[in-house]
Amino acid sequence: MIRFNCDYSEGAHERILRKLMETNLEQTPGYGEDHYCEEAASIIQGLCKREDADVHFLVGGTQANMTVIASALRPHQGVVGAVSAHINVHETGSIEATGHKVLALASEDGKISAGQVETLYLEHIHDESFEHMVQPKMVYISNPTELGTIYTRAELEALYGVCRKYGLYLFVDGARLAYGLMAEGNDVDLPVLAANCDVFYIGGTKVGALFGEAVVILNQELKSDFRYHIKQRGGMLAKGRLLGIQFSELLRDGLYMELGRHADRLADRIRKACTDKGYPFLVYNTTNQVFPIMPDKVLKQWEGRFSYTHQGRVDDSHTAIRLCTSWITSEEHVDILVQDILACED
Amino acid sequence: MIRFNCDYSEGAHERILRKLMETNLEQTPGYGEDHYCEEAASIIQGLCKREDADVHFLVGGTQANMTVIASALRPHQGVVGAVSAHINVHETGSIEATGHKVLALASEDGKISAGQVETLYLEHIHDESFEHMVQPKMVYISNPTELGTIYTRAELEALYGVCRKYGLYLFVDGARLAYGLMAEGNDVDLPVLAANCDVFYIGGTKVGALFGEAVVILNQELKSDFRYHIKQRGGMLAKGRLLGIQFSELLRDGLYMELGRHADRLADRIRKACTDKGYPFLVYNTTNQVFPIMPDKVLKQWEGRFSYTHQGRVDDSHTAIRLCTSWITSEEHVDILVQDILACED
Amino acid sequence: MIRFNCDYSEGAHERILRKLMETNLEQTPGYGEDHYCEEAASIIQGLCKREDADVHFLVGGTQANMTVIASALRPHQGVVGAVSAHINVHETGSIEATGHKVLALASEDGKISAGQVETLYLEHIHDESFEHMVQPKMVYISNPTELGTIYTRAELEALYGVCRKYGLYLFVDGARLAYGLMAEGNDVDLPVLAANCDVFYIGGTKVGALFGEAVVILNQELKSDFRYHIKQRGGMLAKGRLLGIQFSELLRDGLYMELGRHADRLADRIRKACTDKGYPFLVYNTTNQVFPIMPDKVLKQWEGRFSYTHQGRVDDSHTAIRLCTSWITSEEHVDILVQDILACED
Amino acid sequence: MIRFNCDYSEGAHERILRKLMETNLEQTPGYGEDHYCEEAASIIQGLCKREDADVHFLVGGTQANMTVIASALRPHQGVVGAVSAHINVHETGSIEATGHKVLALASEDGKISAGQVETLYLEHIHDESFEHMVQPKMVYISNPTELGTIYTRAELEALYGVCRKYGLYLFVDGARLAYGLMAEGNDVDLPVLAANCDVFYIGGTKVGALFGEAVVILNQELKSDFRYHIKQRGGMLAKGRLLGIQFSELLRDGLYMELGRHADRLADRIRKACTDKGYPFLVYNTTNQVFPIMPDKVLKQWEGRFSYTHQGRVDDSHTAIRLCTSWITSEEHVDILVQDILACED
Repeated sequence: MIRFNCDYSEGAHERILRKLMETNLEQTPGYGEDHYCEEAASIIQGLCKREDADVHFLVGGTQANMTVIASALRPHQGVVGAVSAHINVHETGSIEATGHKVLALASEDGKISAGQVETLYLEHIHDESFEHMVQPKMVYISNPTELGTIYTRAELEALYGVCRKYGLYLFVDGARLAYGLMAEGNDVDLPVLAANCDVFYIGGTKVGALFGEAVVILNQELKSDFRYHIKQRGGMLAKGRLLGIQFSELLRDGLYMELGRHADRLADRIRKACTDKGYPFLVYNTTNQVFPIMPDKVLKQWEGRFSYTHQGRVDDSHTAIRLCTSWITSEEHVDILVQDILACED
Repeated sequence: MIRFNCDYSEGAHERILRKLMETNLEQTPGYGEDHYCEEAASIIQGLCKREDADVHFLVGGTQANMTVIASALRPHQGVVGAVSAHINVHETGSIEATGHKVLALASEDGKISAGQVETLYLEHIHDESFEHMVQPKMVYISNPTELGTIYTRAELEALYGVCRKYGLYLFVDGARLAYGLMAEGNDVDLPVLAANCDVFYIGGTKVGALFGEAVVILNQELKSDFRYHIKQRGGMLAKGRLLGIQFSELLRDGLYMELGRHADRLADRIRKACTDKGYPFLVYNTTNQVFPIMPDKVLKQWEGRFSYTHQGRVDDSHTAIRLCTSWITSEEHVDILVQDILACED
Repeated sequence: MIRFNCDYSEGAHERILRKLMETNLEQTPGYGEDHYCEEAASIIQGLCKREDADVHFLVGGTQANMTVIASALRPHQGVVGAVSAHINVHETGSIEATGHKVLALASEDGKISAGQVETLYLEHIHDESFEHMVQPKMVYISNPTELGTIYTRAELEALYGVCRKYGLYLFVDGARLAYGLMAEGNDVDLPVLAANCDVFYIGGTKVGALFGEAVVILNQELKSDFRYHIKQRGGMLAKGRLLGIQFSELLRDGLYMELGRHADRLADRIRKACTDKGYPFLVYNTTNQVFPIMPDKVLKQWEGRFSYTHQGRVDDSHTAIRLCTSWITSEEHVDILVQDILACED
Repeated sequence: MIRFNCDYSEGAHERILRKLMETNLEQTPGYGEDHYCEEAASIIQGLCKREDADVHFLVGGTQANMTVIASALRPHQGVVGAVSAHINVHETGSIEATGHKVLALASEDGKISAGQVETLYLEHIHDESFEHMVQPKMVYISNPTELGTIYTRAELEALYGVCRKYGLYLFVDGARLAYGLMAEGNDVDLPVLAANCDVFYIGGTKVGALFGEAVVILNQELKSDFRYHIKQRGGMLAKGRLLGIQFSELLRDGLYMELGRHADRLADRIRKACTDKGYPFLVYNTTNQVFPIMPDKVLKQWEGRFSYTHQGRVDDSHTAIRLCTSWITSEEHVDILVQDILACED
C-alpha cells in the first residue's frame, strides 16, 4: 500500500540521520542547553531577522500548543480559534486539561478573520455578564491550516492588528509551515510571520525531522520562565541536542524550504488530476494536503492500494478525503496515484 | 425601578428567615453533618421516591455544576451540552478550569435531543482519530433550560435511554426546577426526573432560599467520596445546617412548588400581554422567563422603570429581552408591567 | 453536650439576622454589585486606611484561598506555607486542584519566619536545576494560625520585607482575624496588616456571620479581573448582598472586634484552668483556640458532655486536644468546663 | 571535560542508530500503531511473563509520570512518594499541574517502606476530617531511587501487599531500571517487578536509547483509554515507531541489561576509589550513581576537568556530589577519574 494518509509515515531526511550518527558520542549538557540548540536558535533568529527572539525546541505539536497557551494565559482567559483548529478537535482536550476554554469561531476553510476576532472581543467586553464568561486573550491560527489553506500577508497583518489593538496574543501553529511558505500564491515569509505574531513555531515532525517543533517567542511578555513550562508539561527532552541538530540541518541552508516545495509540487499534480477528472474539492488550497470529493466507487477500488484520511460523507455516493504528500513522497508514487485517478471508472 | 431582570433580586421566603431565627443559637456539627441536613435529605428522598439517593447541599449553581462534573469524569472525558448551556457560556469556564471540555451541541430553544447525543457519540467512536478527541461521557441538560423551555417526560426518557445505552451519565441542572415542574404542559415530576437521570439538583437560590442547591445522586457510581469533591471545590459550607434548614422549609409541605406556580402564573400574564400586543418571542415557553422581541422604542420608555436582560439585537429596531418573574414577584408589579405593555406606543 | 470543637456551631449574631429580615424584600442587583456590598467595602477601606484597596466578598475560606492563590500564580509557580497551613492539610488539595504546589516549610507553632522564606527562595534560584522545580511566588500565612498563634508586627514586617525583596506576594488568611487582633500580646491592627501584605481576608464565618470572608486586595498586580476568578471558582453568590449586609453589621461600629475579644477572654479562662491544673499545652497562644494535653482519663469523663477536636496522641495516656471558644460561647458553658477541669480526677 | 554529571550526555547505542537508518524510508502508521511498537510490546510482555500487560511507549520520564498518575487518580486523590521523589522535587510541579497533591513521606535514602504507607493510609481514614484531606490512592516509588538505592524483592512485596490491602495503586518509575536490575545485591527481575506493582516503566533515555520510556500496565483498572491520556498530555509521538524500534533493539537480546551492568561495574570502581581514599558517602548504593562527600579542595581541582552534580554542602569544607556512569561511559574515562581520586591531595 502507498500511504497518502499523512505526512509523517517515514523517518527523517538522511542528512539528519547522518548528523545524529556523527555527533552520537559527543558529550553535551542536557535539556537543550547544548551548543547544537544554541546554533539552531541562532539560525532561526537570523532567518526571522529577529535577534531578540527566544527559541525553544519541543518534541511535538500538541506539546508545543499546550505549553505555549498555558504559559500565556491566566485561568479565566481562553484561546480563540477556528472550530476546526487542531487544538479544538484533535488534541484530546489538552488545552482544557490545562484549564482553558477554546473559544471556537465558525470557519469553512480553516481560517479565521480579523473581523471575526474583533466581533468576538467586542461582544465580550460589551456583554453585561462579561465576568461570567471566559475572557478572550489569545488567538490561535495554524498556517497552513488543518484544511491546507494559507493566510495571506494582508490577512495576517489584519489579524495581528486587531490583536494588538485589544491586547490579545497571536499564536501561529506552524506544524506544516514549510508547506505553506513554499505554496503557490503565498506571500508570507519568516520575517513577515515573525513581525506579525507574538509566538509561532516551525514544524519539523511533518517536514523531514524525526520529530521536533521550534517555538519562536517574539513578544517579551511571553518569554519569562518559559523553560519551567516546558519542563512542567513534559516537553523538556533530556537529550535536547537531538532537536538542535535536526533544526540546524533543516534550516542552515534551505533544506526545510526545499522539502516543503517538493511536497507542494507533488500535491499540485494530484490536485490537477482531480480537477482534470472533474472531482470537486472540499476546500481548495495550494499546500501539501489535497481534499477531493471522491466517488465511493473509486475509493472502493483504492482499498489496500492507497491510504488516505476520511473527511466525511458528502452525499450517498461521495466522500471527502484528504491525500497528503510530504517531504519524502516519491514522484513514482504520485505517478501511480495520478494515473489511477485519471483512469478510474467512476 | 421594578426588577424583572432575574429571579434572585430579593432575599428569602419569610418562613426560611423565621426558621433561621428560631434555630440560630442551637449548636450543631458543621459541614452538613447536622440533623437539619439529614431531615432535608430524607424529605427529598421521599419526594423522589428514592430512599437510596445520596443528597448533598451546595451553595450555588456554578459550584454544583463543576463539583458534579469534575467528580464524575476522568481527564480525557468531556461533558455534552447545548451551545447555550449555562456551563458553556456563563460560568467563566469553570468546567474547563477543572480540566474538561464542554462538547457543545447546536440548539435553538436551549434543549438537546436524544438523537443529537447518539449521533455525537457514534461519530466519536467511529472516528479513526477517536483517541485524539475528547471522549463524551456525561450529558448536561438544564430543566427548565436557560431559555425557559422544558423537557417532556418522553424527551427525558429518550435522552436517558441513549445515555444508558452508551454508558453516558445524564446530569440535570435544576436551578429553576420548581418553575419547570409547575409549568403549563409539564408532565415531569420529581419521581420521573429521579428515574431518568444519574444526578440532578433542586435549585433553591432562585426559588425562595437565600441560597442553596440540593444535589441528588441516583447512580451508585457517582456517589463515592462526593464530599471530598465538595470540599475541594470550595463548596462545603461550615454552617451546613443553613442549607438543611432552608430545604426542609421549602420542601416539607409543598412551599417550593407553590412558589414555582406563583412565578409561572405571573409570567403567563406577561406572555399573554406580549401576545395580545403582537410581540413575537425569541423562544416560546411556559416557565418564569419570558423572551419577547420588543420594539426599541418601548424599551427606551422603560429606562429606569423596569429592568430586564438583553438577549441580543434582532433587527434595526427590535431587541430580544428576558423578563423574569420569581417566587416573590408581586401581582401589583406585574399589573404595572402588563398595563405598560398593552398601552405603550410602538 | 456543650460544643467546644469549633467556632462555627451556631448561626449568626442577632443583629445580622435582624438586618437580613429588614432588608429581605428589597430588590437589588445580584453578584455583589449592590449598595450593601459597596457600603461594606467602604467601611473596610476606612478601617484599613486604604481607600485604594479592592474588596470582594466570598462565602468561605477554602473558596477564598483557592481563588486568591489561583488568580495570582502562573502555572509553574507555587505557594509557600507552613506544613500545618490550612491549604496544605485541610482543604482536600484544593490548591493542587487549581494546578499549584504548596511548598511546605517546617513549623512547630504554625508560624513561618522571614528567614525560612528567604532561605527557600535563595535555594531555588541558586539550584542548577531551578527550572525543574516549582518557582516560589506567593507566601501564605494565617493569622491567627491554625494553632492559634499570632504574628507580631515585627514578624509580619520582616516577612513582607523579604517578600518585596524577592518579588513574592504575601497573602494572609484571616479566617479568625478578630480573635488575633483582640488577643493579649497582639500589636497588629487592620492598618498595620493592610500595610504589610499584598492581600488578606477578614473572616466572618467564624466570627458572628452566617458565612463570609472579605478579601482585601492591596497590591495593584493582583486586582485585575478578580471577579472573573470568583465566578470561575464557584464563589460568586447570586444574592451577593447577603455578604455586604453581614460585613456592614459586623464592621460598622466595632461589633467584629467585640466578638473577638469575648471569645479570647473566655479562652483565657480555659487556659488558666488548664495551667492551674498543671496540664501543659501542645502550643501556647492567646487566641480563641486552646490546645491542652489532657489525660485520657479526663477525656473519657467528658464523653457526651463536651466536644473538642483531637490533635494527636502524645503518649500512652495523654492526648492533645483543641478547645474553641467563639463569638457566642456563653460564660455559663465556660464556667461548667472550667469547674470540670479544676475538679476532675486525673 | 569528562562528564559524570548525568547519564544522558551522549546519543544512543549504535545498534539503535543503525536500525533507525535501515528502517528510515519504510512507511508505517503513526502514533505507535506500527509493527515495531507491536514487536517491542510483545518482547516486553515476554520478558515480564505477562502476556496480559498493556505496553505504551512515551518519550520521557516526566511525561510518563504525569500521564500514568493523572490517568489513574480522581481529583480528590493524591500520590504518595518519598520527599526526594522525582515527582516531588524535579518535575516543576507537573503532578500538581494535573490537579493532584504529592503526599511526601520522610526518607533518608530515597526509599519508602510498607510501614510508612500503611501508617499514612490509616491516619487518613481515622482522621475525623478525612474528607478535608487529600485521599491517598497511589504510591510512587522509583527503582533505583533518585539516590541510587534499590528495593529488595521483600521490600517490594511488602509495599505491594500494603497497597493491595488498602486499594492503593503501586507505580514504579524505572527511569534507570537496568542499573537497578544489574546492581550487586539486587534480587528483583522483570517478572518479580511485574508481579509486584500495578504499573511501571522501563527507562530507555538513560540506558542507551535516544529517548523513550516503556510503560507497562498490569492492573486492568488502569488500562482503559490510556492512549487518550498519552495524547492529552502531549506524549503521543507522531512517528511512534521510533520508540518501538529502540525498545526492540534494547530488549530483544539482552542489550539493555548489558548496558546496565556496564555502568554499574564502572560505578563500583569509582565507589571503591572513594572508599579507599576514605571519602564517605551521602548514601551508599550499588547502582550507576555515586554520592561521595568530597573535600572542596578536591572539587576545586576538578573544575573544567570533571563535571558532576551538586547534592548539597555537608560542612564548611565538604560537599556531597553525584557522579554518574552510564551505558556508554568509557573505561578510560573512569581510569582517569579513579586515578585522580586516589592521587589527589585533600
